[in-house]
Amino acid sequence: MRTQVVIIGAGPSGLLLGQLLTRSGIDNVIVERQSADHVLSRIRAGVLEQGTVDLLHKAGVAERLEQEGQVHEGVEFAIHGQRERLDLNDLLGGRCVTVYGQTEVTRDLMAAREASGAPTLYQASDVQPHELKGERPHVTCQVAGETLRIDCDYIAGCDGFHGVSRRSIPDGVLTEYERVYPFGWLGLLSDTPPAADELIYVNHPRGFALCSMRSATRSRYYLQVAAGDSVENWPDERFWAELKARLPAETAAQLVTGPSLEKSIAPLRSYVVEPMQYGRLFLVGDAAHIVPPTGAKGLNLALGDVRNLHLLLEQAYRTGDAACLERYSTLCLKRIWAAVRFSWWMTTALHRFPDTDAFTQRVQDAELQALLDSRAGRTTIAENYVGLPFPALD
Amino acid sequence: MRTQVVIIGAGPSGLLLGQLLTRSGIDNVIVERQSADHVLSRIRAGVLEQGTVDLLHKAGVAERLEQEGQVHEGVEFAIHGQRERLDLNDLLGGRCVTVYGQTEVTRDLMAAREASGAPTLYQASDVQPHELKGERPHVTCQVAGETLRIDCDYIAGCDGFHGVSRRSIPDGVLTEYERVYPFGWLGLLSDTPPAADELIYVNHPRGFALCSMRSATRSRYYLQVAAGDSVENWPDERFWAELKARLPAETAAQLVTGPSLEKSIAPLRSYVVEPMQYGRLFLVGDAAHIVPPTGAKGLNLALGDVRNLHLLLEQAYRTGDAACLERYSTLCLKRIWAAVRFSWWMTTALHRFPDTDAFTQRVQDAELQALLDSRAGRTTIAENYVGLPFPALD
Repeated sequence: MRTQVVIIGAGPSGLLLGQLLTRSGIDNVIVERQSADHVLSRIRAGVLEQGTVDLLHKAGVAERLEQEGQVHEGVEFAIHGQRERLDLNDLLGGRCVTVYGQTEVTRDLMAAREASGAPTLYQASDVQPHELKGERPHVTCQVAGETLRIDCDYIAGCDGFHGVSRRSIPDGVLTEYERVYPFGWLGLLSDTPPAADELIYVNHPRGFALCSMRSATRSRYYLQVAAGDSVENWPDERFWAELKARLPAETAAQLVTGPSLEKSIAPLRSYVVEPMQYGRLFLVGDAAHIVPPTGAKGLNLALGDVRNLHLLLEQAYRTGDAACLERYSTLCLKRIWAAVRFSWWMTTALHRFPDTDAFTQRVQDAELQALLDSRAGRTTIAENYVGLPFPALD
Repeated sequence: MRTQVVIIGAGPSGLLLGQLLTRSGIDNVIVERQSADHVLSRIRAGVLEQGTVDLLHKAGVAERLEQEGQVHEGVEFAIHGQRERLDLNDLLGGRCVTVYGQTEVTRDLMAAREASGAPTLYQASDVQPHELKGERPHVTCQVAGETLRIDCDYIAGCDGFHGVSRRSIPDGVLTEYERVYPFGWLGLLSDTPPAADELIYVNHPRGFALCSMRSATRSRYYLQVAAGDSVENWPDERFWAELKARLPAETAAQLVTGPSLEKSIAPLRSYVVEPMQYGRLFLVGDAAHIVPPTGAKGLNLALGDVRNLHLLLEQAYRTGDAACLERYSTLCLKRIWAAVRFSWWMTTALHRFPDTDAFTQRVQDAELQALLDSRAGRTTIAENYVGLPFPALD
């Protein structure tokens, strides 16, 4: 089997890259370890930056997003028991975010891929990229008991933090940057109306909380919990009581509670590897970088990488000159570090850290307040939250 | 001896408070441990916020400042070997800073006090405030071998971090917040033309540096040095070589060096006590809070406290109702914490910290760059650098 680009991973990054390549007339094959249903079962973030929405439009997969996505022209912060709204629309002259679950993005991309006829190999085991520095790069895997070899020009590693792509790069090539935070997010999904029309990020002495949503009738709430805590410790009643204790009184009084559809704890981590390329292999999204969920940058950053890789591959095939591909890593990393910085900052500004000294806590209180008290400060938060511009290719 | 307000300390805070009170017809006596010459010999910062300049005008002591002060409409940052200028004038619509040494401010205030005839007791030893919570507050001291008792209504503690005022408040009343930074600033004063027309704050892998000045022919430079380093380790040649190594190449090439007039190392510390009042005693400036010199907030913050205390005392005497004085601490502290936060941030963003992990270093690099890359980000720095507005009294 032969193609131009093998894409490892059928999450939103791999699927979007496939869609964009196919539309540019570049053959590609996606190999995915799991089944499509398993991929769709992952519950992830759901706040899309303006640039992400524009990119999905460009890829021709934004029809349902356009109909069902909720455009949010603001975002709220609760600090010292008071809610304060950032008017994104006003601060940024019309740019805003759209709430639309990652699962829905994935579903739309799967439908588009099926319609395009481009091949996706699900439940492919033992996926392994080969000859990354050589002239004959290829990927091997097992599908339905058969060993398959797919020869290609390039390999896109869209297989996440735990995937095989990054691990295929020899020791010593990559530099890793990492921060593990001393807490996790306990998430609860419920068929209840959201606490507010927009997201509320809560800084409270008991810990961070977030009121988010998937639709007008489905809410997603999060609580900062200690590292190592487990879902078994959090029956629904305890979750709701703790959430109410962290919300401003009026918001807590109006909160509609209900049985959880899902509860899970996610650890918080920042992680970046440099460079994001090794020969013919390009790392995309979570395979190269992880951000904590605060500020919802993860999916958006990943799709930003996809945008860059698609444009560079398109240019390389069009001009017959592959030199431009060497720019991939540099092109991605400036914006990635800006978002890693913002996610780190939002995490640091909103969570309670164990063993924080009194000075640091007061500085934290002062920092968020100082930004909210200034239009320029609110604008810097808004600019990062809505997403920094994609880099120019030239 | 009897007066309305005893001011402990004849630094710029005590002198300005005396000047403002005298102009409001409120009797005051200043007691100072040192001689006037000793007070004037202290070399301190020299960047005045817009609000500080306005306040000195209001106090009638800005004539020489107006003639000799250098208005700076911009400030520079050097990062990754590139100089980037913040145009304060453009970003803030006309507000800017004025370079005029603290020594000169003190000199002008001393002259004004002498002209006003209000009493200043220099070389007063064993200064001690008494009956702070009682009806008969007073200050005792030794002047020229005589024990003096000054009865008063209120006492203003303008005697700095090591002064007697804060130490006179009983244990358990004050809450202290402190951060000691693991480095100091080595300063060098020289009669050489400054490296640039405006200040340059330098972030460099070898450590922070600052190019500042006192006039068109007198420069003040600073280098980050390890905590515990000493001036003896820094002959002039080593200082200039290290400064050049930290400056952008073109700036280093043009640097004019010369013999040092003064060299000293200052430790860096953030410190705040709350509250800033105990009965009839009010803590002002360094007696209540210390900031690292990064961003030059110290003198400006102190004079902001003076402004608040003057207005409240004026109101208390005018209305015959002292209740308003209870607001002093709260009125000051919000702005103080904002400036403490900014000084901490600027210190953190510009210095190299020993034992920093690679992730934190990259985030530092990304943070300053992200702010400089955005007009809103540059504006937040400019707003804080030029000084936040004084609080409204009502």
